[in-house]
Amino acid sequence: MHPLALQAFEWQGTYLRLLDQSRLPAEIVHCQIRSAVDAYNAITTLKVRGAPAIGITAAYGLYLGMLPHAHLPTTLFLEELERGIAYLASSRRTGANLSYALARVRAAVSDSRPADSKAMLQAMIECAAAIHREDAQVCERLAKKGEEVIPSSACILTYCNTGALATGGSGTALGLIRRAHEVGKNISVVACETRPVLQGARLTVWELRTLGIDVCLICDNMAAALMQARKIDLVLVGADCIAANGGFANKVGTYSLAVLAKYHHVPFYVAAPVSSIDFGIITEQSIVIEVRPENEVRMILGKLPITVPGTPCWNPAFDVTPPELISGIITERGIIRHPLRENLAALKSSQT
Amino acid sequence: MHPLALQAFEWQGTYLRLLDQSRLPAEIVHCQIRSAVDAYNAITTLKVRGAPAIGITAAYGLYLGMLPHAHLPTTLFLEELERGIAYLASSRRTGANLSYALARVRAAVSDSRPADSKAMLQAMIECAAAIHREDAQVCERLAKKGEEVIPSSACILTYCNTGALATGGSGTALGLIRRAHEVGKNISVVACETRPVLQGARLTVWELRTLGIDVCLICDNMAAALMQARKIDLVLVGADCIAANGGFANKVGTYSLAVLAKYHHVPFYVAAPVSSIDFGIITEQSIVIEVRPENEVRMILGKLPITVPGTPCWNPAFDVTPPELISGIITERGIIRHPLRENLAALKSSQT
Repeated sequence: MHPLALQAFEWQGTYLRLLDQSRLPAEIVHCQIRSAVDAYNAITTLKVRGAPAIGITAAYGLYLGMLPHAHLPTTLFLEELERGIAYLASSRRTGANLSYALARVRAAVSDSRPADSKAMLQAMIECAAAIHREDAQVCERLAKKGEEVIPSSACILTYCNTGALATGGSGTALGLIRRAHEVGKNISVVACETRPVLQGARLTVWELRTLGIDVCLICDNMAAALMQARKIDLVLVGADCIAANGGFANKVGTYSLAVLAKYHHVPFYVAAPVSSIDFGIITEQSIVIEVRPENEVRMILGKLPITVPGTPCWNPAFDVTPPELISGIITERGIIRHPLRENLAALKSSQT
Repeated sequence: MHPLALQAFEWQGTYLRLLDQSRLPAEIVHCQIRSAVDAYNAITTLKVRGAPAIGITAAYGLYLGMLPHAHLPTTLFLEELERGIAYLASSRRTGANLSYALARVRAAVSDSRPADSKAMLQAMIECAAAIHREDAQVCERLAKKGEEVIPSSACILTYCNTGALATGGSGTALGLIRRAHEVGKNISVVACETRPVLQGARLTVWELRTLGIDVCLICDNMAAALMQARKIDLVLVGADCIAANGGFANKVGTYSLAVLAKYHHVPFYVAAPVSSIDFGIITEQSIVIEVRPENEVRMILGKLPITVPGTPCWNPAFDVTPPELISGIITERGIIRHPLRENLAALKSSQT
């Protein structure tokens, strides 16, 4: 497998070519996103996942969904656009990048004051492509800004998948790890399998092995014993949504790692683009958490039942970690350190 | 399913009838243990698991293994016996009950000073049956002694399987839960699935549903979020081996729950028979931890691969929890509270 295969999607001019992540690593299958419905379904069924990748897919999907409305007068086109935004925004409830991307496409349409619907469509596709392109650049910048937190020799524990498959570029937490490896640091990675959908076992392991980076796979419940044995130098995770106080939502199990890292005095860093910060959310406790189908717990990857049929399950897709458990937040604009609320506010005001 | 089906094994006069737990809950299949090799294989392949159940199986297995030597003179018989003990003791490395049961059968032979090998065999089978019978009584007594730690209404988080399938009776931690339910307490249980072998999802859920006790299944990485939301009143786990300082080894993932319970101020109790205490082990750090095949992590239940083939994995069967994270140890002789080392020592001296 060539590292170039590590690409979640590619815009093909008339459709989005998407690597079906729900079938990795057993099968490498691509699908074609040709409508908003295709994009919506790809997002809900986890063919594409990772907050930045979801945002990019939704931006292209919104454009594809509006293509059939090219003939409409602009007023009706804009009404249709709002419907499309609401539809795609409902595909996943927790990630900040999804609403960020949709809002940005909306702004591109209204800001450019296009003469007709065709010009609006042109503004939309240019915006989607820009979000995609910029995300790759953001990953690069984030990886550079975060370099200082990674020792020259380190065993890094990571969670879920935050690499090329989750973004438009090399990744957030995993992009950082990739860069550390490329600049010659002696890096080994412990990947948690990340139940129930096993993004760590399926995607992170696949990415790291493709890149030639040492990886050891563990079950999520083994991380504590590794920290107890002082085998972990650093925990590095991504974020689906960061609140104004620095608390954040990420794949369920992240909070557990944050508590364990605190208890064992292991640095715990979050790596995420600024687009993952939702300043409208005061604390992480207000982040809406998506609860997914119980069957994801009862049946591994939709294939292997592991319990008594019909057993009640709880399956939140995310959990929230409060700011006091975080060593710092690595963004493309620098590392945000404590006090997180104040330093995030400063980032926001310097942005506007 | 009738609660009576919740029985790990039954002695049939010439063989041990064993419920094959590796195939539960999908298939209810029994196998026949007719030799020491059968017992050894059943233990290593997890057809029977749970520290007390392993001890009982090994005691019967030792007897079955010595049956072909009934004709030997006693000196040679005793030499053969030591070989059999060493063989069965090597089947699992961590549990205290295995060596306890084997040592007790050895003592039964030497203490009774039998005239010939046939009499020695008679002493062995009587001892195995006594260990089996007593374990059921121990479960009853333990459940009574532990009543005070279970509120009249409680949501209890448990781990792995510590019920009828793991013992000769109603179980340790799960036996306590069963009794609380039977005496009319309003009990609901959160069962962690317990990767990699999923004893929680497969066995604990099956037992609780058979008994009509409310159960909700979660992935191991979701326990922290439930504690954060104050949904858990009590954590109740078993133990495979308790050291003289009160620290203990149990299914990998237990230590993680202990740290999380401490952080969230949730009581964390261990339920285990006195036979799980190894006073020869000073602290939990000296307990030898069995590392099992990597494939248990890479391939769910030997059936479904979840990662890139050949990926290095770490698969310790157990982890260790230090005494400072434990609220108390519930035994059939009462609840051992802090200071654990001193109170365990008092238990030992009152025993001898």
